[in-house]
Amino acid sequence: MENFTYHNPVKIVFGKGMIAELPKLVPAAARVLLTYGGGSIKRNGVYDQVAAALKGRTLTEFGGIEANPSYETLMRAVEQARRDGCDFLLAVGGGSVIDGTKFIAAALPWTAGDPWRILSEQAPVPAAVPLGVVLTLPATGSEMNSTAVVSRLATHEKLFFSNEQVYPKFSILDPETTYSLPPRQVANGIVDTFVHVTEQYLTFPVGAPLQERQAEAILSTLVEAAPKVVATPRDYEVRANLMWCATHGLNGIIGLGVPQDWATHMIGHELTAFYGLDHGQTLAVILPGVLRAEAVSKQAMLVQYGRRVWGLTGSDPAALAEAAIAKTEAFFEAVGVPTHLSAYGVNAGEAAEKIRARLAERGQAFGEHADITPDRVAAIIRSRA
Amino acid sequence: MENFTYHNPVKIVFGKGMIAELPKLVPAAARVLLTYGGGSIKRNGVYDQVAAALKGRTLTEFGGIEANPSYETLMRAVEQARRDGCDFLLAVGGGSVIDGTKFIAAALPWTAGDPWRILSEQAPVPAAVPLGVVLTLPATGSEMNSTAVVSRLATHEKLFFSNEQVYPKFSILDPETTYSLPPRQVANGIVDTFVHVTEQYLTFPVGAPLQERQAEAILSTLVEAAPKVVATPRDYEVRANLMWCATHGLNGIIGLGVPQDWATHMIGHELTAFYGLDHGQTLAVILPGVLRAEAVSKQAMLVQYGRRVWGLTGSDPAALAEAAIAKTEAFFEAVGVPTHLSAYGVNAGEAAEKIRARLAERGQAFGEHADITPDRVAAIIRSRA
Repeated sequence: MENFTYHNPVKIVFGKGMIAELPKLVPAAARVLLTYGGGSIKRNGVYDQVAAALKGRTLTEFGGIEANPSYETLMRAVEQARRDGCDFLLAVGGGSVIDGTKFIAAALPWTAGDPWRILSEQAPVPAAVPLGVVLTLPATGSEMNSTAVVSRLATHEKLFFSNEQVYPKFSILDPETTYSLPPRQVANGIVDTFVHVTEQYLTFPVGAPLQERQAEAILSTLVEAAPKVVATPRDYEVRANLMWCATHGLNGIIGLGVPQDWATHMIGHELTAFYGLDHGQTLAVILPGVLRAEAVSKQAMLVQYGRRVWGLTGSDPAALAEAAIAKTEAFFEAVGVPTHLSAYGVNAGEAAEKIRARLAERGQAFGEHADITPDRVAAIIRSRA
Repeated sequence: MENFTYHNPVKIVFGKGMIAELPKLVPAAARVLLTYGGGSIKRNGVYDQVAAALKGRTLTEFGGIEANPSYETLMRAVEQARRDGCDFLLAVGGGSVIDGTKFIAAALPWTAGDPWRILSEQAPVPAAVPLGVVLTLPATGSEMNSTAVVSRLATHEKLFFSNEQVYPKFSILDPETTYSLPPRQVANGIVDTFVHVTEQYLTFPVGAPLQERQAEAILSTLVEAAPKVVATPRDYEVRANLMWCATHGLNGIIGLGVPQDWATHMIGHELTAFYGLDHGQTLAVILPGVLRAEAVSKQAMLVQYGRRVWGLTGSDPAALAEAAIAKTEAFFEAVGVPTHLSAYGVNAGEAAEKIRARLAERGQAFGEHADITPDRVAAIIRSRA
């Protein structure tokens, strides 16, 4: 096990009816900017719950934060928040709204030129406006971490930053808010959570059996819950378990002291930046390709994964590894997320070349051994035609 | 799954050599009181590492905090800290030193009469002096929670309190500090961790499969690691895994949203208070008795535990439950902690009567259904003769 430091001060407030706790969580004197997305919270009752809980507080709104939140949109929110003197941000939505609000939080007190530098140069973030979260879409884990991913429309870039200043002060997780989610978002969220876990688990063993089992705990729970959420979408228990799995997928715990491989996410971000695929869709496409390309170096963990999560038997490691990858692919398809580019109308050869060129220009290589070079990325993309 | 709130702000600094991080973790201007136990840290090099890291800082010491830290000893530390104007506490040791230091932290600014009220009346703790931890004995999980257990010698009482004011600001976990532990302390630590997990897991199902699997992850890792630590005591990986399991056993995560049964701990505390048994010893004795007494109400979880942690097969639930209990008992014995009172020279009948009388006087009943009455406690103790 490698050395590590872990400090996660997010307060989680979990369960039905917990939005009513907001008055205790948001400072009484705060000038709050409520941020949200396309407006589903106004149709499903979440907005009304938040408004009722914060009645009498100083509250302004910024709606319209899109999936893959854009720098362009978020800078408009920064301007509005400055104008209104907001000193607390309340993100009500899924990962895009939360990530976008983290960027707003960091950009608000920022004085060192264009805040895009926080993403493009990983410039230090000396301060941020405090933020809270009401989660409505389990997927990204952003509600309990300090990372945000932001896109720039003008340049087709999708970049991330991570800074302890932007840990939410609290996150309210009410599973009932997820009853009305469209099936496509639910499916994407399951895939996103699943891949967050595999990126921290399917690498190579370093003598960290507890972290491995904690990862398998999430994967097995997802495999069990996924068919149920399709069959009975208003089952509270299933929704609660999916929500808690998503948070644990990326609150940092399973990745402590172990190698990590974010290749699938990094390649997926490029597919979204160029072709607008949903984040979860890109992961379902790319993960099987990355695992097959790395099946030898990841063999020990793929075999363990196949046995423990999928109940595979047999003794040939290569066959077990391939069977585990095939199970993963079939799971994504069964959840309702296609795993090949053709299903999304994307030409794999063209995508491979575009992304190879950009990564080569940036000098990027991915994977726990940093050996997934731009050429190998291109081959992975072509393999997912 | 039940509603819950979770907020654990402890910063964990894990790995070999991490004591050297102390200067970044302890505020530069702090007047530090270093607390420790019987002096093993002066023999095994940990004291020297701490002293070297904090060279030039304002530092005084209070040694001699005993196993099952006593109110009497701790109040002497409070007096000394007041005299010296200490405003930061650094606990270097195991659970007893950490628990004791949490009590010192709460008692220092206390102005509402005798600080024993914090334990005896669960009086609110409005403030506490900040504390940090250098852990040297994996067992209690105190390094990442807000609970402390303190004994009063004069009255043979052992009581706990829990308050967010006494979360450590940081805890340094260097597995190498545990190489020199006596086998008895290592064994007690394994049992303590194991029972922390079962107290939050072996109750009844409430639709929380992730928490169940997270609990099983710790138990399975302990079962795997325990024989190795006996065979190769200087194996870093094994020590690291035991240490991380102990922290996860009681950092609150596995107990979120699920019923809990602290009967074994509560009965065990009485055995320590009256007879001076080690904490781990009392748990090894009592847990099998509690599980057998509750084998029907706990059957669903006992069966799952038997299958998943011990690999039991078969289809008769009662037989599986009993086999799982027998496996647990055998595991404690194999670790080196006897599971019957006779091994400790304690008369079970006398102990049963003493403890029955005290619990009846306090009107206490234990277990996730609060149905382990004083009479049933007495029967459990007698069954462990």
